[in-house]
Amino acid sequence: MKKNVPLDVSYRLINHGPVVLVSTLYRGRPNVCAAAWVTPVDLNLVLVVISRENYTARCIQSTGEFVINVPNHTLRQKVVACGSVSGERVDKFARFGLTPEKARKVGAPLIRECIGHLECKVIKGEERLSRKYDIFLARVVAASAERGLFSTHWLPRMPAARTLHHLGGKRFALLSGKVVG
Amino acid sequence: MKKNVPLDVSYRLINHGPVVLVSTLYRGRPNVCAAAWVTPVDLNLVLVVISRENYTARCIQSTGEFVINVPNHTLRQKVVACGSVSGERVDKFARFGLTPEKARKVGAPLIRECIGHLECKVIKGEERLSRKYDIFLARVVAASAERGLFSTHWLPRMPAARTLHHLGGKRFALLSGKVVG
Repeated sequence: MKKNVPLDVSYRLINHGPVVLVSTLYRGRPNVCAAAWVTPVDLNLVLVVISRENYTARCIQSTGEFVINVPNHTLRQKVVACGSVSGERVDKFARFGLTPEKARKVGAPLIRECIGHLECKVIKGEERLSRKYDIFLARVVAASAERGLFSTHWLPRMPAARTLHHLGGKRFALLSGKVVG
Repeated sequence: MKKNVPLDVSYRLINHGPVVLVSTLYRGRPNVCAAAWVTPVDLNLVLVVISRENYTARCIQSTGEFVINVPNHTLRQKVVACGSVSGERVDKFARFGLTPEKARKVGAPLIRECIGHLECKVIKGEERLSRKYDIFLARVVAASAERGLFSTHWLPRMPAARTLHHLGGKRFALLSGKVVG
């Protein structure tokens, strides 16, 4: 069961650097790709880097919308699979057993199996950044997370809140349950 | 003992989303601040977000150079301390027991206690990004990492390679030793 997350703490869904799944809707077709190069830029501003050779980049350029979904460690094989084929001809939701779910504020779908979601709209006037650097700078317009795994921050003592951190290639390290501070 | 890291895998020093320490040298004074909002943008391009109200932002704007240093989990209290005071009047290296060490390609110092380093030069012509969004887009000109902790990627089975991942406030999660893939 998901709950809404206030926009002013929504950046904490990705503040600790997990790999994410970026979902889009273009011409009625949902699509998803994996991304490790993502960061908050302000309390409700984020950026994600997606190669312009990637079908997802074209979907975002056309619609100005996407969702950043946070998978936990149990989704590792789906994350690798989503990063290994193009969505141009393949329905990755169907092929990899992911479920598109209606978002609140954007057309792009949430991925039900993920534990957190940032619904994003690309900042108008900053399209140059995607053309030159593959950077999509976007405003977070809605956020949600799995109830019980996120209070005002993630709770990694809960195994289901432990995320994947991309070391390179197909290698991922898992977040531990140890929190300090 | 540190070894040089080839530039084409240097992005993997930060690919898994750890909190970092950003060091600068301005008017002969080394300084350091903590940053969680950092990501690779290309094989040897990175960006870091540092508030313009921050002394470090002014140091980078003036010199065009900085170093991204990766601390491991044992440095947690120093990371919190570096993020809690301004370097404008305090020598944080001296106060928090950090050791500045000569970098290879930039004036800003490496922090000896950290396990990895990206020496960075701000991309000319992109200063607008720092003025508008606090984003510093930079080229990695040299990289190094602790021998035995990084091969062509981090080796978290070694406890000293386990990094800090910022959940929010003063809370950090530790990377686990479990690697999948």
